[in-house]
Amino acid sequence: MNPGANLGEARYLILADGHFGPESSKTATSAVRYLPERVAAVIDARHAGKTVRDVLGFGGDTPVVASVEEGLAAGPTALLIGIAPVGGELPEVWREIVRQTLSAGLDLVSGLHAFLGDDPELARLARQHGATIHDLRRTPAGLPVATGRAASTAALRVLTVGTDCNVGKMTAGLEIRHALQARGVRVGFAATGQTGILVEGWGTAVDAVKADFIAGAAEELVLRAAREGDVVLVEGQGSLTHPGYSGVTLGLMHGSLPDAMILCHPASRTRIFNEQGLYDWVPLPSLSEAVGLYEGIMRPVHPSRVVGIALNTRELTEAGAREAIATAERETGLPATDPVRFGADRLAEELMAARGSRLAARA
Amino acid sequence: MNPGANLGEARYLILADGHFGPESSKTATSAVRYLPERVAAVIDARHAGKTVRDVLGFGGDTPVVASVEEGLAAGPTALLIGIAPVGGELPEVWREIVRQTLSAGLDLVSGLHAFLGDDPELARLARQHGATIHDLRRTPAGLPVATGRAASTAALRVLTVGTDCNVGKMTAGLEIRHALQARGVRVGFAATGQTGILVEGWGTAVDAVKADFIAGAAEELVLRAAREGDVVLVEGQGSLTHPGYSGVTLGLMHGSLPDAMILCHPASRTRIFNEQGLYDWVPLPSLSEAVGLYEGIMRPVHPSRVVGIALNTRELTEAGAREAIATAERETGLPATDPVRFGADRLAEELMAARGSRLAARA
Repeated sequence: MNPGANLGEARYLILADGHFGPESSKTATSAVRYLPERVAAVIDARHAGKTVRDVLGFGGDTPVVASVEEGLAAGPTALLIGIAPVGGELPEVWREIVRQTLSAGLDLVSGLHAFLGDDPELARLARQHGATIHDLRRTPAGLPVATGRAASTAALRVLTVGTDCNVGKMTAGLEIRHALQARGVRVGFAATGQTGILVEGWGTAVDAVKADFIAGAAEELVLRAAREGDVVLVEGQGSLTHPGYSGVTLGLMHGSLPDAMILCHPASRTRIFNEQGLYDWVPLPSLSEAVGLYEGIMRPVHPSRVVGIALNTRELTEAGAREAIATAERETGLPATDPVRFGADRLAEELMAARGSRLAARA
Repeated sequence: MNPGANLGEARYLILADGHFGPESSKTATSAVRYLPERVAAVIDARHAGKTVRDVLGFGGDTPVVASVEEGLAAGPTALLIGIAPVGGELPEVWREIVRQTLSAGLDLVSGLHAFLGDDPELARLARQHGATIHDLRRTPAGLPVATGRAASTAALRVLTVGTDCNVGKMTAGLEIRHALQARGVRVGFAATGQTGILVEGWGTAVDAVKADFIAGAAEELVLRAAREGDVVLVEGQGSLTHPGYSGVTLGLMHGSLPDAMILCHPASRTRIFNEQGLYDWVPLPSLSEAVGLYEGIMRPVHPSRVVGIALNTRELTEAGAREAIATAERETGLPATDPVRFGADRLAEELMAARGSRLAARA
């Protein structure tokens, strides 16, 4: 089953207790950004009484509340688990909240590695109260091993890559799509993570498939997205130098065989980010080193170019952001922007040029 | 459970019908090479009446037979599925053979992705006849995401890497272990694939874990193997440029954080191998390109050197093999050998020197 099916009408109460914030609750933050009219309230006792905009800097007057009771008053139809902790298990302290919302008849939407629909207690509660549990990371059966079929698509394939996890690869893709669509380009979007699937309504969490099928899952997504677009934007995952997740990154590259890559980078980070500092021993590559790594590893299989830089400048002033963008352009010779702050027009223009060159080369 | 547990006493009837051969039945071939006294017979109707040595060039007088009936006459205690087809499913034509052997009370040992112990019909037959089904690829619960813990081990960590799948990465590791042990070195072996697990009796099939946990699974294996050795040999998987399996390769690298790598290469191959030719579009990198790729991708995380070349020269004459080895040494400036044909002494010496330098650097 498509794990995103039937999510189009849900109104979410988002569980992000103790974690709601722009760095620490990607799923919650993305739901607020891309499905704002469908977020009823966010649970985080630390910020109770504030609005979502107070915490994130965007997202309007949606309330942040301290308890399930207050959240239910906002009229949600589903509880959305708003973070993806290392290891993927449901924190025990949150189980009580899940129990309460299932008992109140709310559906449950989760991107955790551990499938909540397989949890006997939660499954029983859902049955008793007529609720449905949607596990966004549940992957399709019968995935193939990749064999390069993505290269047979006529669409320009574009993959967002990054110097770290949680830097805006999905967001860059969605903002680029917006800018391309504004120029009349048909775009297919291949969602590869739980948040992208939540936003798009379809996709496969490539980090949850068996390792032999990472690239095969990506290949299938590209073939489907190519039916919907002349450009296919593939949501990237992880980083080639992330000790925990690099396998997902490379598999995704070889499955989607991008013609072009957009390199996403957090302007203020110097080391791989982790709330517990577990990766402080791994410095981030410079932008030019990262371009070399990504292009170098693709060259023997399907040569691909990094054609633009998407900087995440959230922690900088506007002047600081413009300076970081100018520095990135000087260092790499590539167009750069912060697609959230300044729009993705420069990247969209670059991709339209790349698509034009490719069509010309084929003609 | 350790999937290799209790396999130490089994005597195998190996199912390799239509596929028994040095290129096309890695599990069967490795069982013959490393567990010769425990192979009762091999099923492949194409070669019925021959001995294993007739087909492989080694392995003694063990018979190749056409049918289960003939195989049972050789006194096996378990049926071993001898190949790992693309996609990992049990070919339908083999199911009847599995039914017959389970019904005869033989255990079943399988490295397929699809767990035969979860197949209702086969599980029922096993119960009825007192047989046990061992799925070598069944992975442990609760694997962590890798965080670099492998680097904390005092052992010299050595990973076999390759320019392709099925080139002898496990075999090179086992031959190097033999040569190191002959020099009095304590060696731990981290088996990462179904065949290595079969031979060693423990390990984790890293290609079968969920993608986020590839490196974490490798990290756990290294920590355990380091308790048994001053050198840890990690069985490599896939290739950085294999479109289907590269994610497994890179995850394994970042989980095991090797100090040294041995590059394995099939001397006669120029393209990624597949029986159906599915990867003919991907040329193999040259040895020096491959050294650059493997060292380059490790550099930002844990600098590692390729210290030797293990050539697979099976398709060459002895003179041709010696010439290929000399050419490899000239091209790379590294010691090279075919560890199966000429032993792994040169690689063992190089690793002892690497371990000596590392100890000296720490002192």
